[in-house]
Amino acid sequence: MNVLEERVLKDGVVKEGNVLKVDSFLNHQCDVELFGEMADEWVRRFSGKKINKVLTIEASGIGMACITAQKLHCPVVFAKKSKSINIDGDMYITEVESFTHKETNQVIVSKKFLGEDDRVLIIDDFLANGAALQGLISIVNQAGGRVEGIGIAIEKGFQPGGKFIRNLGYQLESLVIVDSMDWTTGSIVLRKQD
Amino acid sequence: MNVLEERVLKDGVVKEGNVLKVDSFLNHQCDVELFGEMADEWVRRFSGKKINKVLTIEASGIGMACITAQKLHCPVVFAKKSKSINIDGDMYITEVESFTHKETNQVIVSKKFLGEDDRVLIIDDFLANGAALQGLISIVNQAGGRVEGIGIAIEKGFQPGGKFIRNLGYQLESLVIVDSMDWTTGSIVLRKQD
Repeated sequence: MNVLEERVLKDGVVKEGNVLKVDSFLNHQCDVELFGEMADEWVRRFSGKKINKVLTIEASGIGMACITAQKLHCPVVFAKKSKSINIDGDMYITEVESFTHKETNQVIVSKKFLGEDDRVLIIDDFLANGAALQGLISIVNQAGGRVEGIGIAIEKGFQPGGKFIRNLGYQLESLVIVDSMDWTTGSIVLRKQD
Repeated sequence: MNVLEERVLKDGVVKEGNVLKVDSFLNHQCDVELFGEMADEWVRRFSGKKINKVLTIEASGIGMACITAQKLHCPVVFAKKSKSINIDGDMYITEVESFTHKETNQVIVSKKFLGEDDRVLIIDDFLANGAALQGLISIVNQAGGRVEGIGIAIEKGFQPGGKFIRNLGYQLESLVIVDSMDWTTGSIVLRKQD
């Protein structure tokens, strides 16, 4: 078991509606030593890939993306979820439906920061239905860049996003894959990974 | 001049309405090597302080907060800007008016992650009127914790936030203080710091 699998089993809390709360270490309070170990594992799994940019989406992905990018010696670009007056007009835009917030957001990346020379590692905290991830892949494709790999902290293996993305041929590396969970007992069953 | 001052003069772009665009290295694309050097400078300026938590606010503060927290060997907590169904009911809440987006947000931190034993370093990317920063200080005070220091990347010295916070006796360390800027000429004048 890797460190994130151990931590999810120890500190993850299952709530009604297939919600897995990991806010004590991943997406509200952030254990940055853990982020460093997660980054090491992604760097190992994507070794041999020539990555020159890490792409994530605000807000929970930013911390782990920055710590991973430090180890890859490349910049992070984080996609923004709504139009800001600080963003220029020349942007890649895609629509993403949020599982958590039950709403549709525009996801935006400035064309200045992603182009056809970019070989991109996408990093995010959760993968469930894959809506956010599809949006990020769409943006890399709009830019003419190449998705070299996708690093996810926690994949909900009982939702279709992961299978769909793997079927498209992407190297998707989820550090934790949850096969099932039960809020009445608090149990979390992880998929065994090599 | 420190590295961030050099970078702001080199790559910062002045826009109408006192907007300083630093999205190529700070808050859309993130130069994580630069973040490491900024973190080193904050660690130096706050040496002697016993800091056990870094507090920031989503989204732009998260990357620099995480990299700083790695060097301080403590966790990050990032305040969230709107109520999420993934957050429990037991929260510190404050209202913050956004200069950029011209709107008021609720800023929220779970009571689980901030308490009276916490000695907090607040990190954020921008300080102008200080609305976001007042909200973060309010949350630390609600928790009964102690603000040990405040690290800001870029302070707009011609707006009142910085003076107000220093008048309250906080150790506020802005790596860059912009005294004036002119979008018609693109000029940026920085305050000399020791």
